[in-house]
Amino acid sequence: MRKLINAPARFVDEMLEGIYAAHPDRLTYVAGDLRCLVTTRKKQGKVALATGGGSGHLPLFLGYVGDGMLDGCSVGGVFQSPSAEQMLNVTKAIHGGEGVLYVYGNYSGDIMNFDMAAEMAAMEGIRVETVIGADDVASAPRGREDKRRGVAGMFYVYKVAGAAAEDGAPLDEVKRLALKARDNVRTMGVALSACVIPEIGRPTFELDEGEMEIGMGIHGEPGVKGKALLKPADEVVDEMVRPILEDLPFRRGDEVSVLVNGLGATPKEELYVLYRRISQILSAEGIKVWHTYVGEFATSMEMAGASISLLRLDDELKKYLARPADTPFFVQGQL
Amino acid sequence: MRKLINAPARFVDEMLEGIYAAHPDRLTYVAGDLRCLVTTRKKQGKVALATGGGSGHLPLFLGYVGDGMLDGCSVGGVFQSPSAEQMLNVTKAIHGGEGVLYVYGNYSGDIMNFDMAAEMAAMEGIRVETVIGADDVASAPRGREDKRRGVAGMFYVYKVAGAAAEDGAPLDEVKRLALKARDNVRTMGVALSACVIPEIGRPTFELDEGEMEIGMGIHGEPGVKGKALLKPADEVVDEMVRPILEDLPFRRGDEVSVLVNGLGATPKEELYVLYRRISQILSAEGIKVWHTYVGEFATSMEMAGASISLLRLDDELKKYLARPADTPFFVQGQL
Repeated sequence: MRKLINAPARFVDEMLEGIYAAHPDRLTYVAGDLRCLVTTRKKQGKVALATGGGSGHLPLFLGYVGDGMLDGCSVGGVFQSPSAEQMLNVTKAIHGGEGVLYVYGNYSGDIMNFDMAAEMAAMEGIRVETVIGADDVASAPRGREDKRRGVAGMFYVYKVAGAAAEDGAPLDEVKRLALKARDNVRTMGVALSACVIPEIGRPTFELDEGEMEIGMGIHGEPGVKGKALLKPADEVVDEMVRPILEDLPFRRGDEVSVLVNGLGATPKEELYVLYRRISQILSAEGIKVWHTYVGEFATSMEMAGASISLLRLDDELKKYLARPADTPFFVQGQL
Repeated sequence: MRKLINAPARFVDEMLEGIYAAHPDRLTYVAGDLRCLVTTRKKQGKVALATGGGSGHLPLFLGYVGDGMLDGCSVGGVFQSPSAEQMLNVTKAIHGGEGVLYVYGNYSGDIMNFDMAAEMAAMEGIRVETVIGADDVASAPRGREDKRRGVAGMFYVYKVAGAAAEDGAPLDEVKRLALKARDNVRTMGVALSACVIPEIGRPTFELDEGEMEIGMGIHGEPGVKGKALLKPADEVVDEMVRPILEDLPFRRGDEVSVLVNGLGATPKEELYVLYRRISQILSAEGIKVWHTYVGEFATSMEMAGASISLLRLDDELKKYLARPADTPFFVQGQL
């Protein structure tokens, strides 16, 4: 392993200790459990937003806890779901009297635990609603969106729902907007190398230099297209963007936001080489780009590769996407 | 190569085309040369700041062009200096009547070309002053600071000088503050893998899995300490922080900002594991952390590894470090 870590079994907790030490004015934990992470700036009288999921995807998930986005996050082991009890602890800590919205990715362990947490919260008088991110078009065909994985496109759901909650929208309205963002975002990923789970110590899959896997999930799950020889970046982008455009489908005249996401080891230089081709395709298709994000938004530790997400916009989504946000991992001024 | 690129010879220009396409409202180029990058928001009546250097280090160098930081950047090939002519073109474009400060790293090619550009600018009536970043303690011993390389600590010089210029400080004052930041920052890096220059196609050096190189520069230059077996993260941090503390030296009662910088392929999770140990050491030494930055600030494409920078603060440096900044690669609200 080429990793700067101590004992693998302590990796997640030591990472969290580092995060709390680095951002003591912004992030803290509740219930004496490092893995129950909440904002230090709790606001009463607004809908609270919670997420959660496995570790190894920073800034996903906990990195979006902060002003204008989320209020709390339960943190699992590497690629493992946090427990229902941890989710409940976060829920109780962040509830500001207006209910809680859960936004997380479509993975069975997370669903089971979040559903259990929601039931327990209800018994304590906290109303919880849920929106599940499922943006990865490579993970299931059209018509089976309910089987798709949640990947980098969840950033948009957090951003829109978080801004609406900050604005004072009630729970049903925050949920409606989260669903609108969720239903209008599509993502495709490509991996050029695997990552190593510290406690396992070997790559999650084998991919030779010169190979790529199109449609790879953020845990190394295979995609619909499988392994292929690595091609020039422009051709890779073509193979990623076409299925996205056809899926929603995006049409001439649509306005979109584009998110080019590095999976961990791929430099920003390459992400911009990808964006160059994306913008050429969208321009040729008559699709207008309203705002572009390029960077690391949902990673798989040291996996090389990238994903492309497109969000179809309307005035309402633009309004909330444009709002400022300020978390230790993501800062945006008013667009 | 595990790279998402097209023809290697086109890598830098295609990256730049992607950057201009992604941030058309923020960045543009002058003299018909993609590599002469300037802000779209030129302000008259303030000192202008220019930087420049080789490509392959994003967000260094061009990523810091934006509000509250730099005004322009000349962009070289991968790990290569831009030309004096490109620097002059940027200088003329950003000059707002109050002179130009060059801030860049201590590399002979850059020095030669920036000096030539400054002379040519003077002939055109533009006053230019220069501050050279040289924060890498591993690259030359104490007393020979003039031989040290500029690495991630240059972020602090950009941030402080940029905020002072934005504040309307005159050229001599912006230079004084840039020098103060430069003289109070120290950095040490460690590499766990090399990177591949696209046009060369093989790693810049050999480092086996399980090895590390302490004191590595951002182009793969060896450090004073050379190769060693990779140790647990806490021990690596000890070996990095001790030379930093002894060098300035940092003393009990000092207040600092810490920058934990990923070199490219190292995940944020690991950077926080490093910060956990850094904060323990500083606490034990009676050194107070005022603000912490964790992320990618100066990279070597897909190199695995990290650097640690410490900036000793006074009220003046805190004031300018705290100011907001907004570039396509770095956003900070008022601290």
